Amino acid sequence: MPQNKAWTLASFPAGAVTESNFKLIESPAPSPKEGEVLVKSLWLSLDPYMRGRLSQQKSYVKGVELGEVMTGETAGEVVESRHPRFKPGDTVTAPAGWQLYGCVKGEMLTRVDASRAPLSYYLGCLGMPGRTAYFGLKEIGAPKPGETVVVSAASGAVGMVVGQLAKAWGCRVVGIAGGKEKCDYVRSLGFDACVDYKSGDLYVSLKEACPKGVDVYFENVGGPILDTLLRLMNLRSRIIVCGLISDYNSTESYGVKMFRSILVNRIKVQGMIVFDWQERYPEANQALLELVAAGKLKYRESILEGLERAPRGLIGLLKGENFGKQLVKLA
Amino acid sequence: MPQNKAWTLASFPAGAVTESNFKLIESPAPSPKEGEVLVKSLWLSLDPYMRGRLSQQKSYVKGVELGEVMTGETAGEVVESRHPRFKPGDTVTAPAGWQLYGCVKGEMLTRVDASRAPLSYYLGCLGMPGRTAYFGLKEIGAPKPGETVVVSAASGAVGMVVGQLAKAWGCRVVGIAGGKEKCDYVRSLGFDACVDYKSGDLYVSLKEACPKGVDVYFENVGGPILDTLLRLMNLRSRIIVCGLISDYNSTESYGVKMFRSILVNRIKVQGMIVFDWQERYPEANQALLELVAAGKLKYRESILEGLERAPRGLIGLLKGENFGKQLVKLA
Repeated sequence: MPQNKAWTLASFPAGAVTESNFKLIESPAPSPKEGEVLVKSLWLSLDPYMRGRLSQQKSYVKGVELGEVMTGETAGEVVESRHPRFKPGDTVTAPAGWQLYGCVKGEMLTRVDASRAPLSYYLGCLGMPGRTAYFGLKEIGAPKPGETVVVSAASGAVGMVVGQLAKAWGCRVVGIAGGKEKCDYVRSLGFDACVDYKSGDLYVSLKEACPKGVDVYFENVGGPILDTLLRLMNLRSRIIVCGLISDYNSTESYGVKMFRSILVNRIKVQGMIVFDWQERYPEANQALLELVAAGKLKYRESILEGLERAPRGLIGLLKGENFGKQLVKLA
Repeated sequence: MPQNKAWTLASFPAGAVTESNFKLIESPAPSPKEGEVLVKSLWLSLDPYMRGRLSQQKSYVKGVELGEVMTGETAGEVVESRHPRFKPGDTVTAPAGWQLYGCVKGEMLTRVDASRAPLSYYLGCLGMPGRTAYFGLKEIGAPKPGETVVVSAASGAVGMVVGQLAKAWGCRVVGIAGGKEKCDYVRSLGFDACVDYKSGDLYVSLKEACPKGVDVYFENVGGPILDTLLRLMNLRSRIIVCGLISDYNSTESYGVKMFRSILVNRIKVQGMIVFDWQERYPEANQALLELVAAGKLKYRESILEGLERAPRGLIGLLKGENFGKQLVKLA
C-alpha cells in the first residue's frame, strides 16, 4: 500500500489565508469501498473558489470542516477500481482533494483522453474553468458579433478562455490584468487590448480600449474594478458575476457605489456557478477541445512542484501572484 | 385664447430639490401646429423618475434644460386638434409637462376611456406606474405561485400594483413602507405582511415575514434596504431594479456591501424602464383594467390642489412624504 500525504484544515482563516490554516498528515493510502475508485493524483488544481470553502459563511456548497482533507479537483490515474466503469490505468479528473491518493465514488469521476490534450488541461481550459467561461459567456453574456467584451483576471484560468471564446465568436475583446508581463501575454492570446489595473487610471485606459463602451463584462474580481466597469457599461449590457476575488480575503466588504448604472442602463447582472449547466458539459467539452485542437485556444499554466507547496500556491493565487492557471504537480 | 401657467427649470439642484429650482411663468396658451393637439390638462402626475430629469448626469433620456417646461405626464381633454385621430372633448394622457395647456404631437397621445375608470387612474395603476409594475414583475421577476415577492415603497404608485398583481398571481407578498399608517394601508390591499422600515430591525422583521426567504424583490428605493434584502434572497432569485429613490437626492452614492450575495445565490439583477415593452402596452392595459373592474386592484391617490403646488409635491415625494400615487389636480 503506497504512502499518502494530505493537507487537512487546521483552522479557519480570519481575513487572509495563511499556511498555518492547514496541516499536512501522512497515512497509508486508503482502500476503495464497493463503487469507489482509488486515484493516484498527478495534478492538483488551485482555484479562487477554494477561499469560499474555508469559511463558515453560507456559500455555494458546504465548506470544509476542521480536520477534513482540503477539497480540490485533481487529474490522475486509476490505481484500483471497485466500480464497473473504471479500470487501473484510466486517466480521470476527480474531486480527490489536496492529497496524493484519494478514494472517490465512480459517479464523481470524469474519464479524460490524455492523448488529445495534456492531462493537466482537463483541470483548466478543458475542465471546470473552461466550462465556466463557456457557459457564463454564452448563456448570461450572450455576446453578439461586433460587441465589446471585457474580462477581468484576464490571464487567469477562466479569463484566458473567456477572451479567446469571445474572439472566436466575433467580438472585440479587452482584458484587465495586473502588470505589464501579464498584459503582454493576454495580448499575445489575440485579445484586442489589455489594460493594466496596477498602472495609470483604469477608467481612462478602459474608455480608450472600449471606444463603443462595454456590452458584456465577465467579472472575476469585484471591488473598485467593478465600479469602474459600471461607469462604462452600455444600454442593455450584461455582467456575468463569476467571481469577486478582491472580496474573498477581506473582513469587510467593498461597497459598490455605481449600482445606479444597473438601473440607468438596464443592465442584467447575474451570478453564476458552472454546476447549473451540468447536463450540458459535453457541449462545452467538445467546443473547447475543438478550439484547442485548432490552435485557437492557447493556455498558460503556472506550475508548483510538490503537494507541500499547495497552501502557498492558494495564498499566492488569492493575491493575484499566479500567472496562468495555477496547478500543483504531485508526481 | 386661455391663459397658460407653466413651471420651468430655473436651476439644477445640487443634492435635494428645492422650490427655487423652478420658476412659474404665465403666457397665452400655445396654438397647435399641423399634426399637434392642444390639451387642457386636468391632472399632473408626479413621479420619482423626474429627479433624474433634473440632472446633467447620463440617465434614461435627455434631462430638462434650463428654461424649459418641466416634463411630466398629464391627463386631460383635447381643446383643439390638428391631428386626424383626435377631436375636441377626447380624454387623453399626454407628456404635456408641468403646465395647464400643452401642445403635443398626436403620436404622443394615448386616448383613454374615462367611463371605465377615473381619469386620474390612467396616470397611475392604469398608466405608466401600473405598466411598470406589470412588465417588471412579469418579465424580470417571473414569480411562480407560492414564491415570496417583496416590494419596497409598497404604498407608492408602482408598489401598490406590484403587490396586488403578485397576489393575483398566487404569491406570498410582503411590502416595505415607512410608518404604521402606510403599513396598515398596504396590508388592507391584501398583502400578506408589510414591514415598517422606520421601526425596529428591518432584517429581523423581514426574515420573520419571509420564512422561506425572498424569491423576487421589486426594488424602488436602494440604499441600506437593498443591502438588507440581498441578505435574504434565495438561490436563483430575481431583483427588479425599478428605482433607487434613496440615491436620487444624494450627492454621494450609497455603497452596496452585499453584492457578493449575487454571486453566492446566483441572483439575476436587472434594471428596467417600462418603455422597453412599449409594443406590449395594450396587454398590460387590459390586464390592469380587468383587475380594477373586478375590484382586485385598489389604489390610493395623494392629491394636491393647483399647479402652484407641483414643486412642493415632487420634493415631498422624493422624501417619501406622499401616501399613494402623487397627483396634482389642475382644474
